[in-house]
Amino acid sequence: MASETIALILPLFAVFVAAKLVGGLATLVRVPSVVGEILAGVILGNTFLRPMLGLDGDLELLRAMAELGVIFLIFVVGLETPLEEMRKVGKTSAWVAVLGVAVPFAAGYALMAALGHPTVEGLFLGAALVATSVGITARVLADLGVIGGREARIIVGAAVIDDVLGLTILTVVEAIGSGGALDLWRVAFLILQAGVFVGLLMFFGGRLARSALSERNPLARRWAWAAPNGALFTVAVVVCLGLSVLAGAIGLAGIIGAFLAGMAFAGSPRRHELTQRFEGIVRFTVPFFFGFIGLQVDLAVAAGAWKLALVVTLVALATKVIGCGLGAWTLGRRSALAVGVGMMPRGEVGIIVALIGLTLNVIPSSLYAVVVAMSVLTTVVTPPLLVWAFKRLPSPTPAPA
Amino acid sequence: MASETIALILPLFAVFVAAKLVGGLATLVRVPSVVGEILAGVILGNTFLRPMLGLDGDLELLRAMAELGVIFLIFVVGLETPLEEMRKVGKTSAWVAVLGVAVPFAAGYALMAALGHPTVEGLFLGAALVATSVGITARVLADLGVIGGREARIIVGAAVIDDVLGLTILTVVEAIGSGGALDLWRVAFLILQAGVFVGLLMFFGGRLARSALSERNPLARRWAWAAPNGALFTVAVVVCLGLSVLAGAIGLAGIIGAFLAGMAFAGSPRRHELTQRFEGIVRFTVPFFFGFIGLQVDLAVAAGAWKLALVVTLVALATKVIGCGLGAWTLGRRSALAVGVGMMPRGEVGIIVALIGLTLNVIPSSLYAVVVAMSVLTTVVTPPLLVWAFKRLPSPTPAPA
Repeated sequence: MASETIALILPLFAVFVAAKLVGGLATLVRVPSVVGEILAGVILGNTFLRPMLGLDGDLELLRAMAELGVIFLIFVVGLETPLEEMRKVGKTSAWVAVLGVAVPFAAGYALMAALGHPTVEGLFLGAALVATSVGITARVLADLGVIGGREARIIVGAAVIDDVLGLTILTVVEAIGSGGALDLWRVAFLILQAGVFVGLLMFFGGRLARSALSERNPLARRWAWAAPNGALFTVAVVVCLGLSVLAGAIGLAGIIGAFLAGMAFAGSPRRHELTQRFEGIVRFTVPFFFGFIGLQVDLAVAAGAWKLALVVTLVALATKVIGCGLGAWTLGRRSALAVGVGMMPRGEVGIIVALIGLTLNVIPSSLYAVVVAMSVLTTVVTPPLLVWAFKRLPSPTPAPA
Repeated sequence: MASETIALILPLFAVFVAAKLVGGLATLVRVPSVVGEILAGVILGNTFLRPMLGLDGDLELLRAMAELGVIFLIFVVGLETPLEEMRKVGKTSAWVAVLGVAVPFAAGYALMAALGHPTVEGLFLGAALVATSVGITARVLADLGVIGGREARIIVGAAVIDDVLGLTILTVVEAIGSGGALDLWRVAFLILQAGVFVGLLMFFGGRLARSALSERNPLARRWAWAAPNGALFTVAVVVCLGLSVLAGAIGLAGIIGAFLAGMAFAGSPRRHELTQRFEGIVRFTVPFFFGFIGLQVDLAVAAGAWKLALVVTLVALATKVIGCGLGAWTLGRRSALAVGVGMMPRGEVGIIVALIGLTLNVIPSSLYAVVVAMSVLTTVVTPPLLVWAFKRLPSPTPAPA
């Protein structure tokens, strides 16, 4: 009577339990639990458990839960990032972003050239090495209790700028890859659009959120009556998902919208109430994000191109640390290193770039597999390094309550 | 770069916003908000918005969110239902369930016979009229603040028993429909299995949960260290989803497992903490359940067989009120009516029964459409009637804090 429930809920149940179980075991041996959660996904995806648990079909549902997980995670990070704090670190963030984009892009291009690959492959690999995926760093820093600190804010701010730059590079590379003429007006328009989106939300989002939630706003009063306890939460969910979709619509990563949504509520006097209400939903959805990263790893494919994958991963790690570290150099050597390490994970953005190259038939499927492996490996190695780098900080900056 | 986000999140965003918006508007005109949420689904599913918002493809994702919504909703209802309270109303619940199953089944069968349809159609319609889907009632009673009252507990208890009886009838009817011999041993085994599942969890679930969460349990202590603040929530999510899947695996509705999971934690001293942590997740997922009910309504199909649909719906409503009302007669006329009204919605269970009949080729697709219409209509008309019936109760039984 209810095989529906099994088909829909069993895969979610399996990924959640596996992520929590392996994540918990990981902490027992002093490994960050996110690494365990990713490993759980690798195990589920590459063993007999895969067909048994219904994970061999279409993974749309898990993909959506993973996306919700990272959206809510980054929203909560935004909630703890008031605009004034971002302003303080804005200049450093910008340097971290620019150098952290330039160095990996140049290195990716140079590596392919040195190995005798065509120019376009170099451009795509360079573009795939550009964009930081800040989800895992945010989670680890939150677990460490330093998400409100100076280095964490620089990383998050840089990741936002980094994504705008990555969009620009992708647009240019995509135009070259598809053989069309490079429409500079279109590129300029996209950059402008992304900049306006980020700028407007960053500087007016908070004011809008405050006035919408204000007791003096007649509309807010009316709706508060309609949903007495849940209005704030509902508004926050709507704004968070809505801005994520909007960010996606103009070519940015969805989580940029979620972060800006969180920032808009960060100045609200009811911020703590919101954080509390989102806690359960974050705890429930985030394990799917990390489990899904692991599920996407195909060990058989990874084994086929492991040498190139290893080289590209090392280049990816080193160039972000160097580029972003240089950008944050004025903070001192240890802080610069912590920021560089925090910017290392590439996550899903690099994979999307490679997928476009694959679709355009300008990069071979082996290079696609290499980029996937690089994305996963940079994500997996980051947490322990991040814990180490943040524990070395001269005076740990505590999260303001 | 992020069209993924749009494809996955836009339908969720659309259903959530529409449900909250129309739900909020409904309360402004004193209609329960669930009716608005369902109506939002009907609007999204039957207008130009459907293709625009990506709701014309595979709805697996929304179906899963809807399933999660009702699972978490009923889990929280279970949390507010300690075993001792269920024991007090057990006998009444049993009578409500038995009469509430017998009367609709007989009436469905008789109606088809009177209209000259084949016997097997009568059996399937009867079976489709049997099982109450308690999600909407739970939500309305929670909104009214009477979910902890006597009548609410009788309804929830009766819905559990009702589902076991419904499974039995479905098994028998399915055997007849597929032309096979009726294997009485198999039927007996299924009933026994369902009874053991419900019985064991009801009577030992609480003890297990208490000992697992106890400070004195060495395993619990060890894991509490691994996940200091989230262990309780994580364990609850795992138990809730796990028992839902298990209930599905033995043929019961998934929400029966979720309810028993909630009941297991109802006696825990940390129950309030759990309720609080589940609040956000319930608020986020439940609108998908009601929105999805509306989305499934195909107004074109409904228009084709509206006369039979209307008659069947009236029979469905009247027979539950009569059957369940008789079962609860000892509570007094008004309470009996409130219980009967609370048992009216059929939800997805009736649809599944009809789908099996359709798959076995023993009922025509028009009768399937009628059952879908009946399920939706009984769900839509219940909330206002329920508000009315509960407001008439002589001494409203308040929810214990």
